[in-house]
Amino acid sequence: MADEPASERTRLRRYHWLGKYDRETINNIIDAGIICHVGYVFNGQPYVTPTSHWRIDDYVYWHGSAASRMLKNLETGIPVCFTVTHLDGIVFARAAMNHNVQFRSVMALGNAELVPEEMKREALAIFTDRLAPGLWDYARKPNEQEWRATKVIRLRLDEVSAKVNDVLAGDEEEDCASDRWSGAVPLSIAQGQLICDPKLAPGIAVPDFAKNFRYPPKR
Amino acid sequence: MADEPASERTRLRRYHWLGKYDRETINNIIDAGIICHVGYVFNGQPYVTPTSHWRIDDYVYWHGSAASRMLKNLETGIPVCFTVTHLDGIVFARAAMNHNVQFRSVMALGNAELVPEEMKREALAIFTDRLAPGLWDYARKPNEQEWRATKVIRLRLDEVSAKVNDVLAGDEEEDCASDRWSGAVPLSIAQGQLICDPKLAPGIAVPDFAKNFRYPPKR
Repeated sequence: MADEPASERTRLRRYHWLGKYDRETINNIIDAGIICHVGYVFNGQPYVTPTSHWRIDDYVYWHGSAASRMLKNLETGIPVCFTVTHLDGIVFARAAMNHNVQFRSVMALGNAELVPEEMKREALAIFTDRLAPGLWDYARKPNEQEWRATKVIRLRLDEVSAKVNDVLAGDEEEDCASDRWSGAVPLSIAQGQLICDPKLAPGIAVPDFAKNFRYPPKR
Repeated sequence: MADEPASERTRLRRYHWLGKYDRETINNIIDAGIICHVGYVFNGQPYVTPTSHWRIDDYVYWHGSAASRMLKNLETGIPVCFTVTHLDGIVFARAAMNHNVQFRSVMALGNAELVPEEMKREALAIFTDRLAPGLWDYARKPNEQEWRATKVIRLRLDEVSAKVNDVLAGDEEEDCASDRWSGAVPLSIAQGQLICDPKLAPGIAVPDFAKNFRYPPKR
C-alpha cells in the first residue's frame, strides 16, 4: 500500500503522524532539492556529507565521495542513509515546548552501489539537463580522464519515507485561550541576480539555460 | 594551531583546499543555521535526521531524537556526526565536470551525550532566546511533565572542520579561452510575511520577538 511504510526501519516513530509514504510526495521532496545529506559508517563512526543529488525513476544518484572509495571493492554495496530536507518556516507557539519548524524531508535507507561505467555517462547528462535544460549540450563534454575521475553512486528508493510539517503550533486548548500570540515566519530559498564570471571575454551571451533557471528546478 | 584540523578524521581529503579549521569560521556557519543533520548508527545502519540545533560555547545542542533512546543507558555517549550546510549558489562552468555548488558547511565528529537535568533547562532557555530574543520569557514555561518528556543532547566541538566554496568555476585556461559562458545563480534563505495563527483571539498584539525576527538569527 502506497500509504504504508516500506519497512519497520522507515516507519516514523517520533511525530509519526507527520509521516507520508506515497511515492509522489517523496519524489516531489527529493526533486525540489539540489543538495542532500548522505550518511555512511566508517570504523564505527557515522559521517554525514552534503552533496548534490538527482533522481532517475526509482533511484537517487550522487557524485563520488568518500563512499566511492569504500565502494570500490564491494559489489554488495554499503549501508547509507540519504536525507533531503527543506526548511519552510519557524513556528512560534504559545507554549515554549511547542515551538517548531515547518519542513519537508525524505529519508531513504539501503545499500548504495557504484553506477557502472556505461550508465554513469547517461546519468550525469540527465543530472545536468534536469537542473538546467540545455546545460549538458552547452558545456564542454568531459574528456576520458575526467570521466575516469568521476564516480557516481546510487541508492534504490525501497526503504523510504517522507515527513512533512506544514501546520502552525499544536498548542493545547488551555494555552490557546491565553492572551499569548502565536504564528510563523515562512522561510524559502530565494534566487539572486545571475552573476557572470568576470573572466568572460566581451560579447559572450548568457545562454538560455542560465537565463531561464528557476529554483526549485522542475525535474 | 587554529588553521590545522583537530584530527586526521576531520582533515579534508576531497577538495581539501576548501577546508577551514579556525573556530570563528566554524561558529559562524553553525550559528547561521537553524537546522542541522545528525548522523548516528543503529544495527550497522546509518541514520541521518534533520533537527534544530544551537551552540553554547564549545558545544552544539539538539533536541531529543532516536539518539536519546540510544543514549539513555550509555554514560559514555554514542558516536555521531553533526553537519550544518548552507547552500549559497549554483555555479555553471564552461566544462561539464566543473559545474558546482557554492556552500558553507561544518562537520563535527565525536560522542554525543545526554545533557544532565540541571543544565537542560538553561540550555533550552538559551536556545529560544538566541533564536528570537525575548521568546523564552514570552511563552508559557514548560510544566514538569513537559520537562520530563524533553531530552537534550550535546556534542563537544573537538573534532570539527568547515568547508567553504564561494568561488566561481575553476575552469582550465583552455576552456576559459572558449566562447562559452560561465557564471552563478546565488541562492539564499528568504523570509516571508509573518503569519498569525487564525485561532488567535482578536486584539492580541504581535510581540517584539516576532516582529523583529530576522533570518539568519544573530546568536
